[in-house]
Amino acid sequence: MSNSDKSNPVCKIVVDAMGGDFAPRNAILGAIDAVKVDNSIRLLLVGRTDEIKGILSEINADTAYYKIIDAPDVIDMNENPVVALKSKPNSSIAVSAKLIAGGNADAFISAGNTGAVVASSTLLIGRIKGVERPTIGTFIPNQKGICTLFDVGAFVDSKPQHLLSYAVMANIYVKEIYGINSPTIGLLSVGEESEKGNKLTKDTTELLKKSNLNFVGNVEGRDILKGTTNIVICDGFIGNILLKFGESVPGLMKHLLTQHAKKSLFEKIKIGLFKNTLKEALRPLDYQGYGGVPLLGVKGVTIIGHGSSTPLAIKNMVLRAKEMHDKELVNKIAFSLNQSQEKITESKDE
Amino acid sequence: MSNSDKSNPVCKIVVDAMGGDFAPRNAILGAIDAVKVDNSIRLLLVGRTDEIKGILSEINADTAYYKIIDAPDVIDMNENPVVALKSKPNSSIAVSAKLIAGGNADAFISAGNTGAVVASSTLLIGRIKGVERPTIGTFIPNQKGICTLFDVGAFVDSKPQHLLSYAVMANIYVKEIYGINSPTIGLLSVGEESEKGNKLTKDTTELLKKSNLNFVGNVEGRDILKGTTNIVICDGFIGNILLKFGESVPGLMKHLLTQHAKKSLFEKIKIGLFKNTLKEALRPLDYQGYGGVPLLGVKGVTIIGHGSSTPLAIKNMVLRAKEMHDKELVNKIAFSLNQSQEKITESKDE
Repeated sequence: MSNSDKSNPVCKIVVDAMGGDFAPRNAILGAIDAVKVDNSIRLLLVGRTDEIKGILSEINADTAYYKIIDAPDVIDMNENPVVALKSKPNSSIAVSAKLIAGGNADAFISAGNTGAVVASSTLLIGRIKGVERPTIGTFIPNQKGICTLFDVGAFVDSKPQHLLSYAVMANIYVKEIYGINSPTIGLLSVGEESEKGNKLTKDTTELLKKSNLNFVGNVEGRDILKGTTNIVICDGFIGNILLKFGESVPGLMKHLLTQHAKKSLFEKIKIGLFKNTLKEALRPLDYQGYGGVPLLGVKGVTIIGHGSSTPLAIKNMVLRAKEMHDKELVNKIAFSLNQSQEKITESKDE
Repeated sequence: MSNSDKSNPVCKIVVDAMGGDFAPRNAILGAIDAVKVDNSIRLLLVGRTDEIKGILSEINADTAYYKIIDAPDVIDMNENPVVALKSKPNSSIAVSAKLIAGGNADAFISAGNTGAVVASSTLLIGRIKGVERPTIGTFIPNQKGICTLFDVGAFVDSKPQHLLSYAVMANIYVKEIYGINSPTIGLLSVGEESEKGNKLTKDTTELLKKSNLNFVGNVEGRDILKGTTNIVICDGFIGNILLKFGESVPGLMKHLLTQHAKKSLFEKIKIGLFKNTLKEALRPLDYQGYGGVPLLGVKGVTIIGHGSSTPLAIKNMVLRAKEMHDKELVNKIAFSLNQSQEKITESKDE
């Protein structure tokens, strides 16, 4: 999985230089910025060599810290992931995943086609034993800090054992990355009582109760922003819808403020004066700070970024990837899944 | 269903005086305010006579416009709806529903236990022919005005025919109440393409395509606030979670502004000065203007309010109930469901 050894703590991070709406510029600028923070990082910049070189020469990047891996093809943001992966084996996403799969790098970040990153990680890097479905989690800032929501990867029609494995993986992620020893886990439903919910939540509750996780029961839609639990687990259908709904809230706010500013010059001036304060106050909501979101359950560190990722977002993705590698997240998840499986089997035998 | 005749346009509205966190005060103040706007309304105030009289005497309400119907029991907000309905036949909610069922009133509003209002309407007033499940819709303000989201009533594990009937009923509601002739209808999913979604959305798409509704296909979480369609249809599990998530957004905003104000006196003053502007700008988000949400699919007009309903919200609920009665929503929904059933049957025969 990893070719770094303890005596040489260099971490090789594969950067899909062609991923995102502002590639390769933002991907490269952000990745190079990350190296300035942590010089144990070595970048493998994957994509069209000429384009990558063009950006690198502009910023006079230190050649000691990166290598360019040529990948002439690009998977577009709207291409069908599986079809594109097959028809474009020389795409930056496919080449990146193969670098991890071949043990030539330690972590992979991309702001490209999410489905293709998931598919390449799942098919080329492979799943951890016991994982039927990998999961994407996201960070939702709330009144107590951050809630991590799994799954937002649009894996739909989940089965209870999928949600259980999301919870096991999320538990390790939050414990290791946020240093929360026994994170609280809620199951997203329509009422706090365990009899409130759909068939999936009721069946999943049974499994979660048997696990050794800090499962507190059902949580409701309002609990995400209230910060009732550290982790919220749901089917990817609802997670994806919630994520996109949440991302559209600032747009509505902006629209309502713009409309209000039209009412009078006085209101317009007030809103103009307040703009920066509002922006500062709402900074915790800015996704750039979180960078990207982890894909858990594959045999490698994969972080997926927003298509519109800025250099700051990419930089934070690279740094988070390094942290996940250093903390051996993949091994810890594999161990924890194995333990969880034993625990469930035991309770069946009883 | 209704005992008003065309020559005498008086509309009798049953008000669950004991419903809501601030009952009976807010329920009565709001209902009396509605009569001041529309004096063709006659109120049947259902609840504990003494308590109701106490509030009425405070405000010197005109006795011509209301009647008190005694109901000594109250169903609490957190009681199990079906159990409570059985054990408390003299509760304000049960008595209210029976008034509609018996043809003694034209519409019913309550800010009480939502489940109990749904159960009493469904069991005592009864469902319209062809309705397996009634549906609760909500109004979500967005960049183009309002999106109506059905179902938010937490009816979970829906079947495709349930979602189709929600769409048929929502179509009539939006057409009649908002005067939109052929409202656009989107099915909430994880991608715009019809192949993106779960089993339920894929199967429902087939049904919606065969209907005579203005179905535009899948919409995503972000489309609700963008205002892509007039109506968004989803299973009650996700609708309920989205609704509660959305309701918790202002709380997070307030929290972030309060935190920011602590940074410096200057920021605190700026936020203080801006508070009212922000409040005014975000007024379209205030649920009070919408009052309550309709329960569609039962043989009577039922409007359900938030537990924390203010007198303004209750007033708007009463006025909306009157409008639904005047526009014969129940008959129109019954007619439309019948037509839709014929259309689906025809397309099966072809």
